[in-house]
Amino acid sequence: MFATTAMLGDTGYARMTIEAIAARAGVGKATIYRWWPAGKSALVLDALAENVESGPTALPDTGDLEADLRGVVRATVAEFADPLLSATTRALTVETLEDDELAGQVRDRLLRPHFLAVRERLEVGREAGQVRAGADLDHAVESVFGPIFHRWLLRTGPLTDEYADGLVEHVMAAIRPGSA
Amino acid sequence: MFATTAMLGDTGYARMTIEAIAARAGVGKATIYRWWPAGKSALVLDALAENVESGPTALPDTGDLEADLRGVVRATVAEFADPLLSATTRALTVETLEDDELAGQVRDRLLRPHFLAVRERLEVGREAGQVRAGADLDHAVESVFGPIFHRWLLRTGPLTDEYADGLVEHVMAAIRPGSA
Repeated sequence: MFATTAMLGDTGYARMTIEAIAARAGVGKATIYRWWPAGKSALVLDALAENVESGPTALPDTGDLEADLRGVVRATVAEFADPLLSATTRALTVETLEDDELAGQVRDRLLRPHFLAVRERLEVGREAGQVRAGADLDHAVESVFGPIFHRWLLRTGPLTDEYADGLVEHVMAAIRPGSA
Repeated sequence: MFATTAMLGDTGYARMTIEAIAARAGVGKATIYRWWPAGKSALVLDALAENVESGPTALPDTGDLEADLRGVVRATVAEFADPLLSATTRALTVETLEDDELAGQVRDRLLRPHFLAVRERLEVGREAGQVRAGADLDHAVESVFGPIFHRWLLRTGPLTDEYADGLVEHVMAAIRPGSA
């Protein structure tokens, strides 16, 4: 797995080959195909999912919901702005559009943990009186990630900290107590 | 152009061939390739763009901003929920992810007119006092289309009128006077 994520960072998804991953991991190509018969996309999915599962996905709770959201949104926007990470996401998105099974795996293993982490932070914020009782938290979560994805995919504007902060401000306007 | 949109509706993007379009339009295959050397995606883009350019893109203005948004959001969500239209969008999205030039054309000719139409309706709503002065209208437009696209792409939930109405409610909560 380490060989895969290291290679993603060094050479990017498109130019990465099963041969090179096998060489870097010190195993034969047949070993890779035995574990990942579907090939590169399945291997990369597993490597990225392992990162998600081993790393902390919960948002920090500093008591300031808007600041905590700003942190995660800035980090997410920066990932989409990074050329190598963006290329991997682009390649995986193409494959998910053509493969429902892979699409489900990407959603459930790579993305859903991040959606849930934001949702949980919003729930804590609601208990602390920083989110109005009637706010729909599913819509709130989608109003965080949807616009980023849309902007990345369509390249309708810059992916910067300034954009991230403006997005959080807009999201907060919809859920703050007294907002509806 | 009519032959192309008719075929998109009948057989869908994936199974549509240049031969069949030429036959339906009553011209030779060479004629099609002379006008659209890049082939199927360029032809479909032109056909869809012609629809956008000839049809009304401005939102109705009934004086009730939320109701007018509900109309356009329900229609957009229904397009993404339609199996044939969704398949076309899926195929074009794959090609745009691999072709920056096509991506720019899809954005500017097919999508931007819709974004601008919503933006203009929001501006009218702001003049009418239905949108707070400080609301960022670019974020507002992206908070309409981004979540729909995200939900369609990742299949994180149903694409129904109920979803559309909830989304509009959430969008309005962020921009209504007194919301921030």
